[in-house]
Amino acid sequence: MKIILVGASGTIGKAVHKELSVRHEVITAGRSTGDLKIDITDKETIKKALASVGTFDALVSTTGSVHFGEFMEMNDDDYMVGIKNKLMGQVNLVLIGRDYIAPEGSFTLSTGILNRDPIRLGSSAAMVNGAIDSFVKAAAMEMPNRVRINSVSPTVITEAMDSYGPYFRGYVPVDADTAALAYSKSVEGIQTGQTYIVD
Amino acid sequence: MKIILVGASGTIGKAVHKELSVRHEVITAGRSTGDLKIDITDKETIKKALASVGTFDALVSTTGSVHFGEFMEMNDDDYMVGIKNKLMGQVNLVLIGRDYIAPEGSFTLSTGILNRDPIRLGSSAAMVNGAIDSFVKAAAMEMPNRVRINSVSPTVITEAMDSYGPYFRGYVPVDADTAALAYSKSVEGIQTGQTYIVD
Repeated sequence: MKIILVGASGTIGKAVHKELSVRHEVITAGRSTGDLKIDITDKETIKKALASVGTFDALVSTTGSVHFGEFMEMNDDDYMVGIKNKLMGQVNLVLIGRDYIAPEGSFTLSTGILNRDPIRLGSSAAMVNGAIDSFVKAAAMEMPNRVRINSVSPTVITEAMDSYGPYFRGYVPVDADTAALAYSKSVEGIQTGQTYIVD
Repeated sequence: MKIILVGASGTIGKAVHKELSVRHEVITAGRSTGDLKIDITDKETIKKALASVGTFDALVSTTGSVHFGEFMEMNDDDYMVGIKNKLMGQVNLVLIGRDYIAPEGSFTLSTGILNRDPIRLGSSAAMVNGAIDSFVKAAAMEMPNRVRINSVSPTVITEAMDSYGPYFRGYVPVDADTAALAYSKSVEGIQTGQTYIVD
């Protein structure tokens, strides 16, 4: 398969690359590194990058950021950060990718544990994760040509505990390699409309 | 209690008004009708209306619209309609309402069945409902002064079947009066961070 991996330089992205590149052609994409330059908040960069590849079999996104902050200090602009980046950035990968994806291809987006198991500062992350998991479930039913779409929702990643540990006390982390298996399942399996929980 | 009901003229809003006004002071709000004029996409109208009331005990929203369309024909502007209206419109009621809500007060937002049980044309509705249900779950944990926040997620409403019926074949509708009970539970109960499913 020809797979586009957006966010390839991140902690999960690297593990997904390792898992999939053994069996497939993986084209990496990122804001500043990778085979393709994609800033998910800038549709033109997505259009240009995907047009340069042409038809592909799978698009995997392991990217997307949100604003973390105390709920009582968050304003609507803070929520719009995550809506424009992690939510609509990933959704735009799908909307633009519709023009290039091969029959029976797949889209795999990234969410996370925070809509299932909230932490302080995480109300925007929860909102965005819930939005994506729900979008995937509904959009899957309307995909033509047996194109599939799933999301992967991992808990905190072991390799990220140095920075995220203080926010995730008591959470059992999972290794990036374990999370990467869920992306493999989405790309190489047959299911659609699923949210693969990794925790 | 002093309760602000945004969307009071709608099918569910009217039923909620009937249910709550027997026991409480209900101040109605809507874009063109009601005691207060609130367009949830315009923060200034929310600020002005809530400032005119001052302290209140509960805010209930039974309003919010999204774009319904074939997934393969939807673009990002179509998704932004629901994000700006049903999602951030209702979230802004909460963000602005934080300044006026009494201790132990409550916010109740409206979502719907489409993130649990998708229909054709409903990918934006699913996205927005999932976002709100998740936001409520996380924000509830950070509310001060035992202020609570819940969402109500009804299936299609019997009174709306004339217009919505063709999109909800096979769905068992519920009466608006039944859905209104979930709003009463949210306002008059003690739970928080919940999504009350009515189907």
